[in-house]
Parts: sequence; C-alpha cells; structure tokens
Amino acid sequence: MEALQAFPEAGAIQSDVVITNSIGANEAVRLRCRLVHVPGAGWEQIAAQSLPSGTTVCNVHGHEVPIAEFTLHAILEHCLQLWQYPSRLDVDAWAEAYADRAPHDEAHGKTLAIVGFGHIGQEIARRARACGMHVIAVTRSGRQGLALSEPLAHEFIAVSALDEVLARTQALVVCCPLDDSTRGLSGAHQLALLPAQSLLVNVARAEVVDEQALYEALRDKRLGRAVLDVWYQYPKKGQTPVNPSRWPLHELPNVRATPHISAITPALLDRRYRFMARNIARLQQGQPLLNVICQVP
Amino acid sequence: MEALQAFPEAGAIQSDVVITNSIGANEAVRLRCRLVHVPGAGWEQIAAQSLPSGTTVCNVHGHEVPIAEFTLHAILEHCLQLWQYPSRLDVDAWAEAYADRAPHDEAHGKTLAIVGFGHIGQEIARRARACGMHVIAVTRSGRQGLALSEPLAHEFIAVSALDEVLARTQALVVCCPLDDSTRGLSGAHQLALLPAQSLLVNVARAEVVDEQALYEALRDKRLGRAVLDVWYQYPKKGQTPVNPSRWPLHELPNVRATPHISAITPALLDRRYRFMARNIARLQQGQPLLNVICQVP
Repeated sequence: MEALQAFPEAGAIQSDVVITNSIGANEAVRLRCRLVHVPGAGWEQIAAQSLPSGTTVCNVHGHEVPIAEFTLHAILEHCLQLWQYPSRLDVDAWAEAYADRAPHDEAHGKTLAIVGFGHIGQEIARRARACGMHVIAVTRSGRQGLALSEPLAHEFIAVSALDEVLARTQALVVCCPLDDSTRGLSGAHQLALLPAQSLLVNVARAEVVDEQALYEALRDKRLGRAVLDVWYQYPKKGQTPVNPSRWPLHELPNVRATPHISAITPALLDRRYRFMARNIARLQQGQPLLNVICQVP
Repeated sequence: MEALQAFPEAGAIQSDVVITNSIGANEAVRLRCRLVHVPGAGWEQIAAQSLPSGTTVCNVHGHEVPIAEFTLHAILEHCLQLWQYPSRLDVDAWAEAYADRAPHDEAHGKTLAIVGFGHIGQEIARRARACGMHVIAVTRSGRQGLALSEPLAHEFIAVSALDEVLARTQALVVCCPLDDSTRGLSGAHQLALLPAQSLLVNVARAEVVDEQALYEALRDKRLGRAVLDVWYQYPKKGQTPVNPSRWPLHELPNVRATPHISAITPALLDRRYRFMARNIARLQQGQPLLNVICQVP
C-alpha cells in the first residue's frame, strides 16, 4: 500500500499494473501503465485527471463485511453502555453492581439513517434490519441504486432531504465516498437536529463530518456519542506526530476513537488480493476489467 | 420482584394473583391464589410441586430481544477486540496505534452453536444469520420446535450430539432453561472440544456451564474468552457478600463479566408488564391464560 515510495524521483514510471491508493499529480503525469488498481474502495488520493490518456483505474470492495460488523457493534455498544459496569466483578463490585443495575437501551425499534447506500451501507442495513431497526437509506438520488431482490431499507431519501429525517434518527452512520458534494455534509446544523442521545458513527472519511461542529456537539453533549474510525489528520512518516483531529476529540468521554481499523481483517485482505489477481488476469487475457472507476479519456 | 418479602411469616397467604420469581416450598404450601405470574422467563425458583392444587403458574417472555442484542454484541466484540487499542487516541497513541494496526476477526463465516432454541435462541440466530454466520441450533429433540416460515438455523442437532459439532464451533452460546437435563451440560469435556480461540457466552443460568471447568479452561487459555451475564453466586440481602463465582473468574483477563443485565431495558419492562396485565385481565374474564408453564394437578 506504500507502492509510491518505490517510484523513482524523476522520469517515467513504467509498469503494466500499479497497485496503490495514492498518486499525486507529479507522479501521475510520469506514470506509464495500463491499470492503476487501488487496493481498497476509496480513490480520492489518486490524481486521476493527471494520469496519461488510456490509463484505467479500478478499485476493490470486500470491506463492507467488516465495516458493517464494526458499525453494528458500535450501535449495540451505544445501547448496552457496558462501560458503566465495573470491569472486574469481584466481591464488592458484584454486590454493588447487582443492586444498582440500571436499564439500558435496545437497538430494536430505533431509527438508523445510513448516509451512502453502496456496498457498505447495504451490509449495515441488512444487519440492522435483523435487529429490528428502522432503516433510512440516504442516497444521492433518493432511490435504491442497485437492482436488489428486496429493498434493504424501509425508506429511501435523497441527501438533500437529510435534514428532514434527523430529528427522528437515533443512529446516524456515515459511509459515503468523500467528494465535493459530501464534504462537510454533516455540519453544525445537521448535528443540532439529531436527538441529544444519538449516536454518530463515521466509517467513511472524516471530512464528511465537519470537524469543529462535531467536536462542539460532543463537548456540549448535544450529540450523545460518536464512534470514529476515520480521522482528520493521519501520522505521516518523517513528519511531526499529530493528533487525529485539530480539536481535542480525544479528551471527550463520549468519543470512541479507533485507529482506522474497521476493515482490517485477514478475510478482507484475502478477498481483496484474490480480486486484484483476478482483475490482472483479465487484463492479461484482454477481458473487460471489473470495478472500473475511471478510464482516463 | 421481591414480593416474597411481603409474605407473612406464618399462616395462609391469600391473593388472586402473586407476581414473583421465587417461592420456596415453605411459602408455596401456604399460598392460596389462582395465578402465580413469574415476571420473567425462568421459573426454576418456584417450588411449583408444593403449590396447592389448582394453582396456575405463568411466565412471560419479551427478553429475547435485549438478550439477543447483548449476545450479538459479545460476538462482535470478541471479533473486533477493540480493547487492544488505546482508549484515548492522543498524539502519541495515534501514531503508534496507526502503525501497529493488527488484523482482527470477522463474525462472517464463523460457526455459532446455540444451545437452547426457544425465543432467545431464535432471535440470536436471526441476527447472526444476517451477519453471515453459520448457525447450529442445539435442541432437546434435534428439530426446530416451533412452526416457523423459514428455518432460522442452518443445522439442527440434538443436545446429545453437541460434542460432535464443538470442534468446528467458534462461538458457543448457552440460552437454554436450567433443569436436571441441562445442569453442567457444558463441562470440562465440551469446553476442551472447542477450538482455542472460541468464545463462550452464557445468558441462561450459570449452572448450565460447569463452574470449575469453565474457570480452568479460561485460566489455561484453552477457551479464548467468556462473556458471562449469569452467575453461580448472587448477593442476598442481609448475607455476607460473595464473589459471583467460587472460582476467581473475576481475576481472568479473558472474562467479560456483567451483573445479570442483558435483559434489563425499559422496553422489556414495558412489554412484560403489558403482558402480565393482559393475562390478569384474561383471568378476570375467565379466558384461557397465556404462557401457562404449570397447572398444579
């Protein structure tokens, strides 16, 4: 995934296939290859418009399963609030914890809005429905994109109508691609519309949720909790270490912060490498490539 | 739920309906009532055989939803192993955690054996199937008890054949009633058959799993992890505090111990009180009672 480090400093970069999730404009113009295969789904760091004419860019899915599991876990954890119980149930803790048991919540019957209803959103919906949640799919068009045998959401709304459903949303999951139309999609106004006990889960890209608005809503407890696996600042080799956010999100007790791990499973890597190998074989055999996201004109 | 404390010390106890989950033999023989309504599902603490002839005992479900959510959370948590990440993702933790990310597991594709396939087991199965798990239902007969439109498990086996499936089981969930046939059902032999990374979840009654065998399997890491919500010893008012187990399960890092909370949600209480009110109305109107578990001959 760090293939760019192997790129020469100057001159043409020649290969049949380049597997990478990041190509800057400087590298892109020098690249001579038939296929750039992103080893994941997000390709916002590929300067596709600077690639030479004829280059094909493909991506690969397979991460929808672990990301949906991560998201469902976040929703159930928010309901169960297990952190309120002692981690060690010894003789003293036991008597007290048993006497003081407080009711927790159920996911069952709650409303879940899923922003982005591609592979990930649909897998989240499948699991949430089995838990008895009411699922609202928020898509660009307000319609279910893929032809499925059964609708996976109870409601489909266009992203332009998002504000109208937030007041009845107990869990808002962000799993759409990051682009100009989705950057800051969930801002101060949207977060203010959510009920105070709501949960926000971001497994997409951090910037879909406005950074300052998120921090302030959580700090002021206008938003119940956030489970964040994607961040505004990432560590980069040879650079000064950074916090995951410019705002001290890490100081807030109602934030569960994970270091971009939701999709990292051996099964995912296995699915992805198999897929890329299959696609490279197709390239070799002159068959149409799968998951083409861009063909430079 | 502490109705027995209101019982007189001696003499007959007269009422139309008694709501309680515990009647000892001494109280039972003095009870003159038409209906004993257990406000939950388990009625192993009702000395039914000592109740006067003609008494009806009913129980109430509705706890299958929160218990299934608790169980699914336990399974996903076991896969995600979020405890391996820093709880506070500040500047130092962030760089280290991001660099050191290790793959975690998926529930998808794993095998789940559910011992007891009543209301709770079925709700667990419904959710686990949506997560892509392979579900084995372990029942008394080896068949699905209720007439359902679709089988909720991929395999049905009799409890007498449990040993045969344990070696391919990654998660074993115990949610059967406690009686003479299930006490110690999961003993040293069964726990030894499970793969070393397996998860055991007990949301039934502690004694279905042999106490010493469970402790030793976890201590020796022959069993990966246990999520235990039910216990071998409970605090009792006016008595010396006790540990939840006679064995120091609370000292083990691979035990997640919760103080019998899986079912305690406002929605559950609401469902249960509505059900009991409806059953009492039926008693008053001479209609057949629902959920009759015992009619003393």
